Amino acid sequence: MTLTNLHQLSGHEAVRLIRDGVISSEQLVEACLAQIRAVDENIQAWAFLDPEYALTQARALDQLRSTGQPIGPLHGVPVAIKDIFDTADMPTEYGSPIHVGRTPSRDATAVALLRAAGAVIMGKAVTTEFAFLSPGKTRNPHNPAHTPGGSSSGSAAAVASNMVPLAIGSQTAGSTIRPAAYCGVIGFKPTHGLISRHRVSPLSRTLDHVGLFARTIHDIALLAEQLVAHDENDPDTQPRARIPFSTILAEEPPLAPMFAFLKTPMWQRADEETKEGFAEIVEQLGAQVEEVELFPSAQEAWQWHQTIMDAEVARNFEREWQNSRALLSEQLRAQIERGLDVRAVDYQRALKQIAPMHDSFVELFEQRYDAILTPAAPSAAPLGLTSTGDPAFCTLWTLCGMPCITLPLLQSTSGLPIGVQLVGPRGGDARLLRTARWLATKMVES
Amino acid sequence: MTLTNLHQLSGHEAVRLIRDGVISSEQLVEACLAQIRAVDENIQAWAFLDPEYALTQARALDQLRSTGQPIGPLHGVPVAIKDIFDTADMPTEYGSPIHVGRTPSRDATAVALLRAAGAVIMGKAVTTEFAFLSPGKTRNPHNPAHTPGGSSSGSAAAVASNMVPLAIGSQTAGSTIRPAAYCGVIGFKPTHGLISRHRVSPLSRTLDHVGLFARTIHDIALLAEQLVAHDENDPDTQPRARIPFSTILAEEPPLAPMFAFLKTPMWQRADEETKEGFAEIVEQLGAQVEEVELFPSAQEAWQWHQTIMDAEVARNFEREWQNSRALLSEQLRAQIERGLDVRAVDYQRALKQIAPMHDSFVELFEQRYDAILTPAAPSAAPLGLTSTGDPAFCTLWTLCGMPCITLPLLQSTSGLPIGVQLVGPRGGDARLLRTARWLATKMVES
Repeated sequence: MTLTNLHQLSGHEAVRLIRDGVISSEQLVEACLAQIRAVDENIQAWAFLDPEYALTQARALDQLRSTGQPIGPLHGVPVAIKDIFDTADMPTEYGSPIHVGRTPSRDATAVALLRAAGAVIMGKAVTTEFAFLSPGKTRNPHNPAHTPGGSSSGSAAAVASNMVPLAIGSQTAGSTIRPAAYCGVIGFKPTHGLISRHRVSPLSRTLDHVGLFARTIHDIALLAEQLVAHDENDPDTQPRARIPFSTILAEEPPLAPMFAFLKTPMWQRADEETKEGFAEIVEQLGAQVEEVELFPSAQEAWQWHQTIMDAEVARNFEREWQNSRALLSEQLRAQIERGLDVRAVDYQRALKQIAPMHDSFVELFEQRYDAILTPAAPSAAPLGLTSTGDPAFCTLWTLCGMPCITLPLLQSTSGLPIGVQLVGPRGGDARLLRTARWLATKMVES
Repeated sequence: MTLTNLHQLSGHEAVRLIRDGVISSEQLVEACLAQIRAVDENIQAWAFLDPEYALTQARALDQLRSTGQPIGPLHGVPVAIKDIFDTADMPTEYGSPIHVGRTPSRDATAVALLRAAGAVIMGKAVTTEFAFLSPGKTRNPHNPAHTPGGSSSGSAAAVASNMVPLAIGSQTAGSTIRPAAYCGVIGFKPTHGLISRHRVSPLSRTLDHVGLFARTIHDIALLAEQLVAHDENDPDTQPRARIPFSTILAEEPPLAPMFAFLKTPMWQRADEETKEGFAEIVEQLGAQVEEVELFPSAQEAWQWHQTIMDAEVARNFEREWQNSRALLSEQLRAQIERGLDVRAVDYQRALKQIAPMHDSFVELFEQRYDAILTPAAPSAAPLGLTSTGDPAFCTLWTLCGMPCITLPLLQSTSGLPIGVQLVGPRGGDARLLRTARWLATKMVES
């Protein structure tokens, strides 16, 4: 490997080379910055990027290593941060004109954990307005006339175009899985409450998750290991033992995994290429997959998700609604207006559905399945930049707080990636990554 | 002690005498039944009581002891159960005509824990309709023309009149502290989430607590030790180490406790006797008490409590509202109607106040106070049986989930008991009991 293509390294490879002294963090960051200079004009992945400051962090980490200090699991590796996570040393503007120039004084917990692991905080990746629907400036690296998906648009596009090996984003409906699928990278939304959302702009406490982006499953495991932690400032995180993602990922499954192919009522929205792609996967999996019907009690899940999101978004944007309504997008204003009308009884009724619905999924897994197999999105990235696409294939799993991963295993005839989504039961995150690795290997081999 | 006044024993004394073979559980239960025969006609504490079945339980426990089996911490001691807790072997009617003859097939978790500790489940104590406002048949043992308070009316009256040494009830606003104060017994509402509410008729997940009744603080500790447990069926309970209530209660405080006398905005409702009684206590406490103002951010707590209770009651009574509206009291119908109109944003805003408000109380305690000192109710038990009195002195602590205890330390000129309430920070339950013991001893001595 020459120094000119260091930007193509995975995070895992890069940290090993840095640890072994083969390359420096400065060389790696410089290679990524060169890639950004080369391609970002057409992609526009960054809300904030200060190349000199990124290099300053890298040199400090190189200096630390040279003094023989213990170094972290992400030592010297650049990570892109969605611009809804507070950063103490960079602006955090939430993709909204209301917060232009906002400079928080402290890091989000997730950012602090990345710094503690030795990561270079490369810059702030473009988000849609407040991680909701209204698009930012980012374009799809595979075709700039197409959306990169959202709301973690910049995170997905930056990883897809080799500007960084790793990125973090978020998901409240489909904001990690969808852009990862559209951009052709791996996106992972862990179990609800595994990763702290402290100092991350909230849409909905019940539905908000931190999401991860990388180009290898190994990197997803490496990143997840740094981020899963109890945080008393996020009441949905729990004290728990560390999850050895990389160790479990490295194990062979005791048996070949069984997949439950679950179309969900959203299947009617899937385009022909997606349907054909899944038909091929099902054929290749043979006896390892069975088609399963969604149980009736989950058919209304999309409506419950809507009710919860409406109510919680309206609550979280009370200040903006009062003080800065004219600076909110039409879409967000309509969402807040809808949410202000939600009754507390309907909101509570929707919340109450989550636990029994997840129980039904647990029963499904316990019957015989290791993961649910389902599309990440109805199609490849749609043409146009005015919408970030349809999250409908993500909604159900987000509502239930279940871990999901998308793998770029399919392609449209026009060369755009199509994501294959796997879903596991809450808490089955590491095993889901192992199952995903098995599937990815199987598909490459066949 | 002769066999005729065994009903006056505390639970702690009784269990020791049973363990030592001095008395049998059958003798104890028979003494309590005799007391019930003697006095209950005027008090009406029971929704369900089968004397023969109580004796059958007692004989079985005596039989168990005689075979040398290990016996529980409440072995052979009768406990009254508020009729909103499911019992597998007795009707559970919630004080509502809708549920007349209802016979659940399983015990509430709290009842199961009492059985496991060896208690005799004496019978079901009268509750107001669904533990809300509409009174049951129970009268105040000190004067049957006065209310016993509610909603745990039968539990408080049964303990006050020596029908049982121990009882359990509940509190959503003031339903344990108020009847305990009116009936002149000790009432204890532990920290929210310490005791499971599984299979207890719910009013409000956020506000519902299990409450305890006894005639000695020692008995409160003994009862609490059996009931505090994690229950995966009550999502607000947490895995935690057992709390050694009796051990901590037996310790001397390292320093004489400091009390924060906190009148709250409800002080204006207190009658002259209550105000004078507290003036005396404050005088006797001397340097151990300081008057403290309620911080401004808590002034609206009563409204937040109302919003949460309105919204959650409306949600919990959807079925009765749909199917049996005519069988609901006017008060409950009005409550549900109000709750149906609560907006989800207002409900969430109210919920959001709890944590910062409790943080402010924690700061107050950390400054220098062991407990807040405040009335349990505005007055002694009011004349009349159409209302169960005013919970306003309990609302704030219930909202914050803080532990509260009332001690029968004062008396009105007409001889009715007046309760003195102590409040601690969440999780400070055992220390609160120790502080209460200190205060009770101090008041008796002076």
